[in-house]
Amino acid sequence: MIRKIQHIGVAVRKLDDAIPFYRDVLGLELAGIEEVAEQKIRAAVFRVGESTIEVMESTSPDGPVGKFLDKNGEGIHHLCFMVDDAAAALSRAKEKGARLIDETPRVGVHGMRIGFLHPKSTFGVLTEFAQEGDGHQ
Amino acid sequence: MIRKIQHIGVAVRKLDDAIPFYRDVLGLELAGIEEVAEQKIRAAVFRVGESTIEVMESTSPDGPVGKFLDKNGEGIHHLCFMVDDAAAALSRAKEKGARLIDETPRVGVHGMRIGFLHPKSTFGVLTEFAQEGDGHQ
Repeated sequence: MIRKIQHIGVAVRKLDDAIPFYRDVLGLELAGIEEVAEQKIRAAVFRVGESTIEVMESTSPDGPVGKFLDKNGEGIHHLCFMVDDAAAALSRAKEKGARLIDETPRVGVHGMRIGFLHPKSTFGVLTEFAQEGDGHQ
Repeated sequence: MIRKIQHIGVAVRKLDDAIPFYRDVLGLELAGIEEVAEQKIRAAVFRVGESTIEVMESTSPDGPVGKFLDKNGEGIHHLCFMVDDAAAALSRAKEKGARLIDETPRVGVHGMRIGFLHPKSTFGVLTEFAQEGDGHQ
């Protein structure tokens, strides 16, 4: 069961160049900056209503965001939905015909259980499910 | 002042092919289907939390979504923020250095006052402001 948009992931070339747009031009609250070594990104998280926007720069050209920028340039990279149960959401999506990147959830930042659907079966939108975690990474 | 993500606009080639993904695979509620002649689109609106996803097909190759699909293929087309005052939000953005597509708000569907920032000054994300309208189109 999808509850809300958890976050929108936006890929930019230089995070420090993009932060003033979200903070000063849009006036959004910067909740924090974090580096996610596993995903080879550094991200600024901005709050907007019940959701966040995660503005990401790549920390390595061979990371997923580095490859995305090479191919597409800057822009929205993925859309993440908050679900009650990430394993059930992935199973349901597969059963209904979606192709999965993650067959079972893995642990993301803040102990969230996350999993991605493949954009080949989501009409071009890299789609993530996230479930509130237990606080362990 | 931005209150929430009002909607995310997703461009697809054939709306009838994409609806089952959002309705059945993701399990989102289909709020309605509408044609917006001015924007040369037909859109299915899905509710998710306080936001919606507007899945759009182009009704003409020379419309903005038709051109986007030609250049980029299917994917997220724009991001719309709900604001208290669209005119003030556009003025503020311009004053802070953003390039505008709409210098002043125009009336969109459901009488909303809307305006777009240019993606050249938003790090690749076509950004829209929307203000609740007076019910007139």
